[in-house]
Amino acid sequence: MIMFDNKDISKTSLSSLGEFGLIDHLMDNVELKNTSSKKGVGDDAAVLDFNGEQTLVSTDFLIEGVHFDLSYMPLKHLGYKAVMVNLSDIYAMNAKATQVTVSIAVSNRFPLEALEELYSGIHLACKIYDVDLVGGDTTSSTSGLIISVTAVGHAKEEEVTYRSGAKPNDLLVVSGDLGAAYMGFQILEREKEVFKVNPNNQPDLSPYTYLLERQMKPEARKDIKELLNVLEVKPTSMIDISDGLSSETLHLCKHSNVGVNLFEDKIPLDPSMITVCEEFNLDSTTIALSGGEDYELLFTVDQKDFEKIKGNPNFSIIGHMKPESEGKHLITRGNQQIELTARGWNALQDEE
Amino acid sequence: MIMFDNKDISKTSLSSLGEFGLIDHLMDNVELKNTSSKKGVGDDAAVLDFNGEQTLVSTDFLIEGVHFDLSYMPLKHLGYKAVMVNLSDIYAMNAKATQVTVSIAVSNRFPLEALEELYSGIHLACKIYDVDLVGGDTTSSTSGLIISVTAVGHAKEEEVTYRSGAKPNDLLVVSGDLGAAYMGFQILEREKEVFKVNPNNQPDLSPYTYLLERQMKPEARKDIKELLNVLEVKPTSMIDISDGLSSETLHLCKHSNVGVNLFEDKIPLDPSMITVCEEFNLDSTTIALSGGEDYELLFTVDQKDFEKIKGNPNFSIIGHMKPESEGKHLITRGNQQIELTARGWNALQDEE
Repeated sequence: MIMFDNKDISKTSLSSLGEFGLIDHLMDNVELKNTSSKKGVGDDAAVLDFNGEQTLVSTDFLIEGVHFDLSYMPLKHLGYKAVMVNLSDIYAMNAKATQVTVSIAVSNRFPLEALEELYSGIHLACKIYDVDLVGGDTTSSTSGLIISVTAVGHAKEEEVTYRSGAKPNDLLVVSGDLGAAYMGFQILEREKEVFKVNPNNQPDLSPYTYLLERQMKPEARKDIKELLNVLEVKPTSMIDISDGLSSETLHLCKHSNVGVNLFEDKIPLDPSMITVCEEFNLDSTTIALSGGEDYELLFTVDQKDFEKIKGNPNFSIIGHMKPESEGKHLITRGNQQIELTARGWNALQDEE
Repeated sequence: MIMFDNKDISKTSLSSLGEFGLIDHLMDNVELKNTSSKKGVGDDAAVLDFNGEQTLVSTDFLIEGVHFDLSYMPLKHLGYKAVMVNLSDIYAMNAKATQVTVSIAVSNRFPLEALEELYSGIHLACKIYDVDLVGGDTTSSTSGLIISVTAVGHAKEEEVTYRSGAKPNDLLVVSGDLGAAYMGFQILEREKEVFKVNPNNQPDLSPYTYLLERQMKPEARKDIKELLNVLEVKPTSMIDISDGLSSETLHLCKHSNVGVNLFEDKIPLDPSMITVCEEFNLDSTTIALSGGEDYELLFTVDQKDFEKIKGNPNFSIIGHMKPESEGKHLITRGNQQIELTARGWNALQDEE
């Protein structure tokens, strides 16, 4: 009002850009001026260089009603998961996570005991993952619970792995299995509806234990960096799977200027995930490609490392990179080649 | 549900603890295990030590309806202020701020052009303060606008200044003047009420320019570290004034285990702030002690540095530290000694 113009603001809907389009747009023309700023927006974490050691910084929001539903998410799990989501970004840079800060905004409807539950999950995650809780902020919110976590990590310069290093012929590798967290979410949503109709119903959720754990208590892949070290494999590019395999694969392609062949029959699926997909009449490949929240690591390695990765129970080789001009494809079980499209969860889509 | 007990949750109101009590309680028993974690919760920023260079990390929330009111806060100013609030925490460690990450959560009622305004303020702040915007997250919110900023800085080990270094007989010094931001807020609140009654009223706000700028476009004190370097003064303790002079002074006392004599007649006040306090029938000392949002730096120096600080227009010597056993006092203009109490803004007080 004093120093700035008051512009008449015209209206462009946020959903017309989507989450990634929005960040790209708002960060357009950002120039890094400090010599310590090595990598800004556009990877899983920012990379800062103080005296040669690389410091990684990543930050994420979790918002009630958008990212979690307290009607079935216990607060202790939520605290645990909030830390995992952020550590995963540091591990996706092939770095060691060392510290987190956690800020929360809460409305007065939360009693102290609820926050103690939340923090017990946060403290547990820090303990198990050897990470120190070094700061944060608590404040009031006009509605609901908001959690913001910043994770800090470090790595040697030659260890840091960006999204941009994949080369044609590199193998595409993923840790663990995919789609289970999404199916856990589907089960929780179904049980919530059942509960509304009949609050006395005592569901037997034991067949779904694995899927529910993947949704409610995900584990970030701290172990992958150590595993790859032992195998003497240096990944050429890496990203974590928060939005779904197809979306993350396309990120690697875009940042590395390469194409990809992704083989449907190589995508690792847990048997219980396949069973529940049948129960829900959903295609398990589609869920693995688009489900998200797996917090597994997706990375590329040079062909020469094939023997080291092949047969390791922690890894699945699911495809290979190609020259960019050859496109990005999913090779189906029926040997059809179809274009790979991002169907990941879009945080800014219009709500119905 | 699977791995954790489901406890019956009893209810203790958050407001019974207050903001600082709440953080202390939730962070109780936090142990720092990584050798790189030098200082966790309990100062303006966390201090991490990677290879000898100290990395500072600080994070803060700004929440619509709690920390700002968009009915009079232009989005560009808000973006600028969100960065300032966080840089101030880094400067309060006597460090150089180098990077920020900014995460926002917005409801779909915000058009793209509104976010462009917000980011124009963020980019401007980064440009003026030589700080790089290196990351962030955008997501949707169920209500309003939420901004989370993390600031990163660095300093040599011997430069980092904690809250805990003040000694008896050290001088208590503050930069700039106090209370103006709070009175700017009072004026904006008054104009909002006037506007509700008569939307066509065109108020003349020119007499309040300085106060409104202090509220709407605060500047963090990047210059203080450089000034003190030139004067060859190393502060013994330091904090920024976000909650009010009395509250911040008591923080220094608590962390340093000292007492204080703070002299009412030495507190720096801008003439326009005094005038507006009279207009509002408010005591200017009370406002300076409790108003908050000044983003000035409060620090202590050894007595031997008196000559270097005295007479410098950037600084006011407002008191001196004492042995803890001698208490914490405000010495009034009438030479009365009264106990200094925290009357700073409490983010978790019950709303009426």
